[in-house]
Amino acid sequence: MNLTYPRRQKQLQSLLQKLGLPEKVPVQWHLLDLALTHPTFSAEANYEQLEFVGDAVVRLAAAEFLWETYPDCSVGEFSGIRAELVSDRILAQIADSYGLEAYLLLDRSAAGDIAGRETRLADALEAVLGALYLSTHTLELVLPWLDTHFKQLATEIRSDPARHNYKAALQELTQSYYKVLPEYEVKEMKPIRGNPQMFTAVVKVLGQTWGTGEGGSKKAAEQAAAKVAFEQSKIQMSNE
Amino acid sequence: MNLTYPRRQKQLQSLLQKLGLPEKVPVQWHLLDLALTHPTFSAEANYEQLEFVGDAVVRLAAAEFLWETYPDCSVGEFSGIRAELVSDRILAQIADSYGLEAYLLLDRSAAGDIAGRETRLADALEAVLGALYLSTHTLELVLPWLDTHFKQLATEIRSDPARHNYKAALQELTQSYYKVLPEYEVKEMKPIRGNPQMFTAVVKVLGQTWGTGEGGSKKAAEQAAAKVAFEQSKIQMSNE
Repeated sequence: MNLTYPRRQKQLQSLLQKLGLPEKVPVQWHLLDLALTHPTFSAEANYEQLEFVGDAVVRLAAAEFLWETYPDCSVGEFSGIRAELVSDRILAQIADSYGLEAYLLLDRSAAGDIAGRETRLADALEAVLGALYLSTHTLELVLPWLDTHFKQLATEIRSDPARHNYKAALQELTQSYYKVLPEYEVKEMKPIRGNPQMFTAVVKVLGQTWGTGEGGSKKAAEQAAAKVAFEQSKIQMSNE
Repeated sequence: MNLTYPRRQKQLQSLLQKLGLPEKVPVQWHLLDLALTHPTFSAEANYEQLEFVGDAVVRLAAAEFLWETYPDCSVGEFSGIRAELVSDRILAQIADSYGLEAYLLLDRSAAGDIAGRETRLADALEAVLGALYLSTHTLELVLPWLDTHFKQLATEIRSDPARHNYKAALQELTQSYYKVLPEYEVKEMKPIRGNPQMFTAVVKVLGQTWGTGEGGSKKAAEQAAAKVAFEQSKIQMSNE
């Protein structure tokens, strides 16, 4: 099906080229158009449903990638790495590297919403991948494309512990095993003259303390506590 | 690759037949064997990793099914129905209808764990679907098989509101939009002579009350509160 706006179709064709997808991709143009339409631009026909499908596509692609690439990793590690791979931060980063924003139809008010930019780009990328998947009903197009990105990102995530998002990893773990989220309690430490501001965090799961940590910001303290909890629970699980 | 135990392979072949899959399925038998090996039977080689992949397979299959079948549903409804379709309860029910338990290798101690039976069966079914997906690297085998089940189940879920698991639906919604879980506060109501015991529940999201409900059990009160919150937030979202 051709779009009624030839200019939009040309634009979308150039996007596929940018993404490095084969020229003769049997893409359904109206789906790709939808995938790049923000809810503020059209309340009825926008990327929301495609994002729902695309999110599942990305998660399966990441699962398969991890299975193939790291056969010796535990499921806890799979969860942790995948939580990062499919995070808004990473997906927005990939979207940005292709200048996806220029193709997204959205209301001017939403365009000014800087705080929502990361989520918006991640959502749009998921929707595009959903559109490509539904156009062909196979993962053949999407998998190799995502794998290239995952390969580099996973290596970085695994090699640099500081990059590791332990809060996301811990959340994946407690959700899948206990169907609950970890809870954080953060306090500012009594300031010691001459020392920078410090925070302490306690992370609890089902009311039980799983870890504590300190850091120069609330977030850093939470990450430190999450790291302790995540590492501990991994050890426990491998002993069970 | 053939299994070293011809009896096991024969057993697995009969399972595929039971599932109604084509006889010439290019299945990797060692993966199917792994999918039906509980962690208590082998701590090193069991279904855990395959379940991770299979869970993603089932979620994508459900997303695609909903997209194809209910094009007019909102993403909130998609989330709600999918949460049910991929629940342990439903997956264990499907597994049971094929007598999957008889094929699962597990330690005698785990076999006696009645409380864990539902999760065990759901996990094993996910792992089997993961094994079938990874054997062929396409969803061609798995999608039509799951669709048959989803079709009937989704009709039931949509037509019978009492079947609807509003707690699961609300949780999906708040997780995807706010990255938090709803919190419930349940109180027993002052008993009125001659009337059965009643409970009230309040559900809060990010500290704000989203709904209240009553019921003859704690769970029923929570479901009632979740229903109010879920319906309200759907209305709000469609107005945004």
